[in-house]
Amino acid sequence: MERQAVPGPFDAQEAAVVLERARACVDPELRRAVDSLPGSMRRIALYHFGWEQADGTPGAGNAGKAVRPALVLSAARALGGRHTEAVRAAAAVELIHNFTLLHDDVMDRDTTRRHRPTAWTVFGDADAILAGDALQALALRMLAEDPHPASSAAAVRLAGCVVELCAGQHTDTAMEKLGPGEITLDECLATAEAKTGALIGSACAIGGLYAGAADEDVEALDAFGREAGLAFRLIDDVIGIWGDPGRTGEPAGADLAARKKSLPVVAALTSGTPAADELAELYAAPFREGELERTVLAVERAGGRDWAQVQAADRMSRAMHELSRAVPDPEAAGGLLALTEFVTRRGN
Amino acid sequence: MERQAVPGPFDAQEAAVVLERARACVDPELRRAVDSLPGSMRRIALYHFGWEQADGTPGAGNAGKAVRPALVLSAARALGGRHTEAVRAAAAVELIHNFTLLHDDVMDRDTTRRHRPTAWTVFGDADAILAGDALQALALRMLAEDPHPASSAAAVRLAGCVVELCAGQHTDTAMEKLGPGEITLDECLATAEAKTGALIGSACAIGGLYAGAADEDVEALDAFGREAGLAFRLIDDVIGIWGDPGRTGEPAGADLAARKKSLPVVAALTSGTPAADELAELYAAPFREGELERTVLAVERAGGRDWAQVQAADRMSRAMHELSRAVPDPEAAGGLLALTEFVTRRGN
Repeated sequence: MERQAVPGPFDAQEAAVVLERARACVDPELRRAVDSLPGSMRRIALYHFGWEQADGTPGAGNAGKAVRPALVLSAARALGGRHTEAVRAAAAVELIHNFTLLHDDVMDRDTTRRHRPTAWTVFGDADAILAGDALQALALRMLAEDPHPASSAAAVRLAGCVVELCAGQHTDTAMEKLGPGEITLDECLATAEAKTGALIGSACAIGGLYAGAADEDVEALDAFGREAGLAFRLIDDVIGIWGDPGRTGEPAGADLAARKKSLPVVAALTSGTPAADELAELYAAPFREGELERTVLAVERAGGRDWAQVQAADRMSRAMHELSRAVPDPEAAGGLLALTEFVTRRGN
Repeated sequence: MERQAVPGPFDAQEAAVVLERARACVDPELRRAVDSLPGSMRRIALYHFGWEQADGTPGAGNAGKAVRPALVLSAARALGGRHTEAVRAAAAVELIHNFTLLHDDVMDRDTTRRHRPTAWTVFGDADAILAGDALQALALRMLAEDPHPASSAAAVRLAGCVVELCAGQHTDTAMEKLGPGEITLDECLATAEAKTGALIGSACAIGGLYAGAADEDVEALDAFGREAGLAFRLIDDVIGIWGDPGRTGEPAGADLAARKKSLPVVAALTSGTPAADELAELYAAPFREGELERTVLAVERAGGRDWAQVQAADRMSRAMHELSRAVPDPEAAGGLLALTEFVTRRGN
């Protein structure tokens, strides 16, 4: 009988400890990298990471939850490696994540990130683009400087992931301009995998590489991360419409008001039901006060919510299957499981 | 007595042969890299390199003169390496150059590149940014995949150079917004070195690394490229005002009409002469038809042209000195000398 790692009753406490430990390991490496930048680029990066305010005074240090570096370190440990050896690689993954955030915010004209004004709103488009470029270079330089035998393979993987992230962002931007009837659900899933799954998969795979894992285990870790990342995106999209009972302050329905073509919406639009036509009609016009409830109901009646929840559960089960291939011992997989539970329950 | 490599009577023919040979070596590697991109990113890169028109039909293939890859290969050969081993590194340098062109054109709102509409005017800002991001990733992935023992050191150098290019572009953009009295000549030279000298220096240094050159020779090659790159920029700026007698179709004075703070202009503005005040006054208002001659004359009378020509000659002499340290045999240095002559005579 095949042993299966099942998501245990990991409480948020455990994930919090794993994340806290990763932050403590990776932050000094990240700070060193950012401090090596020339003044103009450093200023923007320090602001983006929350280490400085726009005027150069110390910031609150809300640099995000460091899920991806925690995955690198946990995957390395799960495969029997020493997580201390993978700290540079974990920092490199976090730099790549932040480079894409800086650029995506410029392209998407997003004005808020981690409860603060985005870098482009403070420093302008050009500087936000340049700081992103510099962070990508820092990340890949960090791996090129790393004497660990896995560093080249990790750089190949991470750079390949950047290409996938770019293609995903392109499709995402392109889809937002299409009409409700012009998007297929498969395209939408592929885009979510490229935008969210790819880097989470790479983080896990790179951890495996640093532990000297066999090729098939590295691939299984990548697949685990991709599936878990997609589950996270699906759940995040559900929260974007129906809200998160465990979370306060997030307005439910914001994605619908913004006419976002999130996964449950596209599932609803492509369902072939009468509610799909109603939703398409609503989406064809700008959002009007008072029609939120009707829109939410249309997505539900068209099966968007059920589809997303079944898909998320399916992706999680595939993720667990992949993880059990790479790490048959559920105890060794503990850190990865806790993180997966954490991100899919709460968003990252 | 120290032997000195002096710029010989290299005719343009010799440089053309060196460039032609570099293109033939590097193009297949570049094409393979670009062809490995997902469709959306590939399309933009193929257009940018001139291999395709915007509609996907074959292009004229005007991918630029490949000066930087030719420098990588020539430097490798000059230091006794096999230039065939450095082809991937040469392609990586060219990818980095093109990534910066894609992004700089977005930031500078430049609408023409290599006699064609820039990528952002055809595909939009977001896609041009993404394609640039993808080219940076491709370049550093190419080095990470390269089994040559110098590939990691080359990647460290190239990624470090990207950071310098970003800082240079930041300062360049910032300077264009400053008033005539707010820029020092030293800042302007430092920016030109970061924007133009750094990558030319890195190209030469990486060629040396691939030949297994000693550290001090690699540094001398870097310094050679930086000084030659600065000489090129100075001469290019002179051409931007007084035109190039050997070149047709370039309107003289275009930089002045655009109120560009090129090196001769900043030298003139900071000269403390009466002509400097006149030039500052002219630059404080938008360009008006008919005042070109007066502006050109003010730059000349304030000593901007003489300064630039003396500086360029001085930089070339420093470049030659650095080259003679790394490559004492003028015959071995032949390819590098021909390329230097070529770029400083004609612009790149």
